[in-house]
Amino acid sequence: MNSNNYAVIMAGGIGSRFWPVSRAGYPKQFLDILNTGKTLLQSAYDRFTGFIPGNNIYVVTAEEYVTIVREQLPLLPPENIIGEPSRKNTAACIALIAFKLRKMNGKANLVVAPSDHLVSNEQQFQKDCIKGLEFTAENKAFVTLGIKPANANTGYGYIQREAVAVEKGIYPVKRFTEKPDAATAALFIKDNAYLWNSGIFIWKVIDILNAFCFYMPDMHELFVCGMGGFNTPFEKATVNHIYEHCESVSIDYAIMEKANDVYVIPADFGWSDLGTWNSAWENLHRDKAGNAVAGDNTLLVDSRGCMVHSSEKKLLLVGGIDDLIIVNTPDALLICKKENEQHIKLYVEKLKQTGGDSYL
Amino acid sequence: MNSNNYAVIMAGGIGSRFWPVSRAGYPKQFLDILNTGKTLLQSAYDRFTGFIPGNNIYVVTAEEYVTIVREQLPLLPPENIIGEPSRKNTAACIALIAFKLRKMNGKANLVVAPSDHLVSNEQQFQKDCIKGLEFTAENKAFVTLGIKPANANTGYGYIQREAVAVEKGIYPVKRFTEKPDAATAALFIKDNAYLWNSGIFIWKVIDILNAFCFYMPDMHELFVCGMGGFNTPFEKATVNHIYEHCESVSIDYAIMEKANDVYVIPADFGWSDLGTWNSAWENLHRDKAGNAVAGDNTLLVDSRGCMVHSSEKKLLLVGGIDDLIIVNTPDALLICKKENEQHIKLYVEKLKQTGGDSYL
Repeated sequence: MNSNNYAVIMAGGIGSRFWPVSRAGYPKQFLDILNTGKTLLQSAYDRFTGFIPGNNIYVVTAEEYVTIVREQLPLLPPENIIGEPSRKNTAACIALIAFKLRKMNGKANLVVAPSDHLVSNEQQFQKDCIKGLEFTAENKAFVTLGIKPANANTGYGYIQREAVAVEKGIYPVKRFTEKPDAATAALFIKDNAYLWNSGIFIWKVIDILNAFCFYMPDMHELFVCGMGGFNTPFEKATVNHIYEHCESVSIDYAIMEKANDVYVIPADFGWSDLGTWNSAWENLHRDKAGNAVAGDNTLLVDSRGCMVHSSEKKLLLVGGIDDLIIVNTPDALLICKKENEQHIKLYVEKLKQTGGDSYL
Repeated sequence: MNSNNYAVIMAGGIGSRFWPVSRAGYPKQFLDILNTGKTLLQSAYDRFTGFIPGNNIYVVTAEEYVTIVREQLPLLPPENIIGEPSRKNTAACIALIAFKLRKMNGKANLVVAPSDHLVSNEQQFQKDCIKGLEFTAENKAFVTLGIKPANANTGYGYIQREAVAVEKGIYPVKRFTEKPDAATAALFIKDNAYLWNSGIFIWKVIDILNAFCFYMPDMHELFVCGMGGFNTPFEKATVNHIYEHCESVSIDYAIMEKANDVYVIPADFGWSDLGTWNSAWENLHRDKAGNAVAGDNTLLVDSRGCMVHSSEKKLLLVGGIDDLIIVNTPDALLICKKENEQHIKLYVEKLKQTGGDSYL
């Protein structure tokens, strides 16, 4: 394995769409939504261990989740877990890890990936990452992995690639489009130049730092001033100071949409952002009646299209019901229609209003 | 209180229609289906304590439930709990208590009632029972309480009364009709001569024993031979022997449908046989959206017409769903449509087939 290659897993997200399995104190990336035996974070970590040296894998998360990450990834060196003092979106997170790596290895070449996505074909994922790393090692390039769209999803960003590849399977990016409206998305998916933005990026540390210097000079300056503190006992105080003054902005908006030398590798490794119970349903094995069940001790009779998640031993008997989301946890049970999954946030809001804070 | 008046509560039933709250080892009469703070048996007992001397109240149940009855009715003398060695329907049960009482009190006058029905107006119930007891004390008469039908239910037996009362509110019975078809039931409820058979009977012990002698001579003979054993340490062995040889038949079929001197008191004390989750729903307080909730810690958002029973502290959040039955117990959870409540037996059967015996 190439000792200049690094991976950073971004694991700071929160989210209530997987409530009641996900909670503010224990969000999605730390859960085994699909009942695979591994949490999403553990799967994200395992995906990298095949081609990134173990000591070169980092996890950036919120400070309050550091303990959970340690528990879930016992083989990861504790110093490779970085707790952010506040949520400042992806740009700050990437600047932080880039500056830390810069102090360690001037040739560091980095894959950045979210912790809470699903990848069903790990071999293909590895191939695509290695292709990107080899390309960025040789070139000043900001590479993204673009997913072949499965449908006209309006919840994702889209990447339009140029027609001609610079290398086999690597295309210059023409344009980024944030979440399009339905009509635009419908046009996009008819054109194979459009890809979903997976949020997986590859670049040399030196190149992304130069880009920060050029496109985000204030943020860059803040981090440069903290340079002395990174990878020392003073790192925590340094990062606290930087984050207090640092802008909250996404790496897409801060750099990718503005930079030159942006490339995309069209990828097809069974990706899902696993954003909702419906996408869990889509990614789980479904029985003949279209029911997806994550959990044991459930019996569905004469029922179709249900998404059932149960992290309890309790027997769950569902009779004669179609297209429900049923989520059973030790202290809370949710029942709603699949078509209403976007309302789960509203239900949880209602719960908050009625004094149910302890379930959030 | 008249020391010749007795009550016997029949508490031997089993039933799977309230699964998963009711189980074979803990059927409906021992449960607080409506979350009132009392089980149905406790409510049945309490209804009698206002006008029947405490020592004159008896409970007949299956042998395996005797312990439960003792726990639930600690004020009832233990010798007033009679365990049947097998299920032989209502005729044998009534013969047994009648023979026992005959040995104690030749003037015994008895109300027989099921343990698992609901009565919302206890005062009216008491008035109707006292009216019946006063009538049977003075007359050779077999009195039933007939319920004014609320709808064309095809699950009940109907009683047709004569037009003219023999005393205020007491009518001779013209005919009993077992569960009619829908068309017949629709005709019945247009005619105020028809009443539902509540299974509540009133008669002197001496009169019902004479009726057994006449209409059920074999059964009568069996019990007469056992006479020496009743109310002695040999009662259990005696009853075991009788039940081994005794016919299984309902008191309606055995005597009421054949006897002369059968009367009905039209009654309206908020009766329900509470046979299914839908009838529980009908008898519970319902919110503006028509949801009936027995249990704490539930939140229904944008949901209508649901029947929710929860005997657990777990939060139950139901969002955007109409007309479901949701029953949550510590070890099992049932979700089905209200319209499919008759299928619950099938679901439980399926559960049995798939090895879920421990939940039955």
